[in-house]
Amino acid sequence: MPLKLSDRIPDIVIGRLPLYLRALTRLQQKDRDITSSHELGRRLGISSAQIRKDLSHFGGFGKQGTGYQIEFLVDKLRQVLQITQQWQVAVVGAGNLGSAISNYAGFTERGFHISWLFDADPTKVGKQIGDFKVLPLDDMEQMVKDNNCQIAMLAVPAEYAQEVANKLVEAGVRAILNYAPININVPEHVMVQYIDPVVHMQHMTYYLRDE
Amino acid sequence: MPLKLSDRIPDIVIGRLPLYLRALTRLQQKDRDITSSHELGRRLGISSAQIRKDLSHFGGFGKQGTGYQIEFLVDKLRQVLQITQQWQVAVVGAGNLGSAISNYAGFTERGFHISWLFDADPTKVGKQIGDFKVLPLDDMEQMVKDNNCQIAMLAVPAEYAQEVANKLVEAGVRAILNYAPININVPEHVMVQYIDPVVHMQHMTYYLRDE
Repeated sequence: MPLKLSDRIPDIVIGRLPLYLRALTRLQQKDRDITSSHELGRRLGISSAQIRKDLSHFGGFGKQGTGYQIEFLVDKLRQVLQITQQWQVAVVGAGNLGSAISNYAGFTERGFHISWLFDADPTKVGKQIGDFKVLPLDDMEQMVKDNNCQIAMLAVPAEYAQEVANKLVEAGVRAILNYAPININVPEHVMVQYIDPVVHMQHMTYYLRDE
Repeated sequence: MPLKLSDRIPDIVIGRLPLYLRALTRLQQKDRDITSSHELGRRLGISSAQIRKDLSHFGGFGKQGTGYQIEFLVDKLRQVLQITQQWQVAVVGAGNLGSAISNYAGFTERGFHISWLFDADPTKVGKQIGDFKVLPLDDMEQMVKDNNCQIAMLAVPAEYAQEVANKLVEAGVRAILNYAPININVPEHVMVQYIDPVVHMQHMTYYLRDE
């Protein structure tokens, strides 16, 4: 992709781009054409100066005083984040959470297509869960390899997370979104991000002191 | 709670405490008594210096060379994060995700008890979903008020998130974990944290450039 990027953009900046894209897409759905760093900032709780600085890493997206062309910026951010095409995603774990994730309708328009749902439990394998027939975990590595799948979502119990992650990495997965409430170790070329609702809630309860 | 805290501890430090607690609890489950900032750091991908510095905000938890008493540190972190007792949590939205969240078994031992599951859809209200009978959204404000519930999880479609958040805030909720892929505006005394898997995956696809 012939996109010019400053060499090392801080990861914290990259992490904010999906939020900008999400907010811009929503404005677009409301038939808006132009926005400003101030409007985005208000919506996201991020300072407008920060937003301008973040976006300046990727070239000149807006002119002082005229704002951002939403469609143009959306396209650029999709390019930068490499979601102009859909990524195939494997979901591992067909419990309540894995089933809900697999059948969530919001992935497609944002760059991801859930392709398979795997589980180790023979009583689950073969069952139809929404749009998915649960596949045996034993088929996972071959399926991931054959399709050059690079992204997986882990929704297995904590005690199996490392083992399944190892298999995914072995099969060529380079990005794992881990819903299991445990840290996993992966080689340096593999990324892991975590989703654990309890971590967020415990973060907030710290502040729930009575005045 | 007579716990001495330095006045303003950076929020980013508070955000790491639940991760420390999670890792320590897992060591405890393995019958371990003592750990070190080095071991925790390796498990969490955080430098040991950072961990020592973070924990030093809350007093002396470990001595140079002797490590941390896991049980003691777990107790202290629970106190600091205010999860020595269980918080009642209201879940709003009884779709796939809300249903999965409500019936997730991992909240209880970490400080939270899902008390109610609400939905606006009359075809869902009254239905039994796992341990929960879905309650009408119209009852939410009264229920939250009567029980002094301070925490809610939002699993409604994006277009309803702001409206439901307003009602929750009105009823006294001070902490919202928002699964809807949209930013919501709340008064300053209310906290919001977000869970959006796509944001995490788009963050990672940025780095999935072919070598």
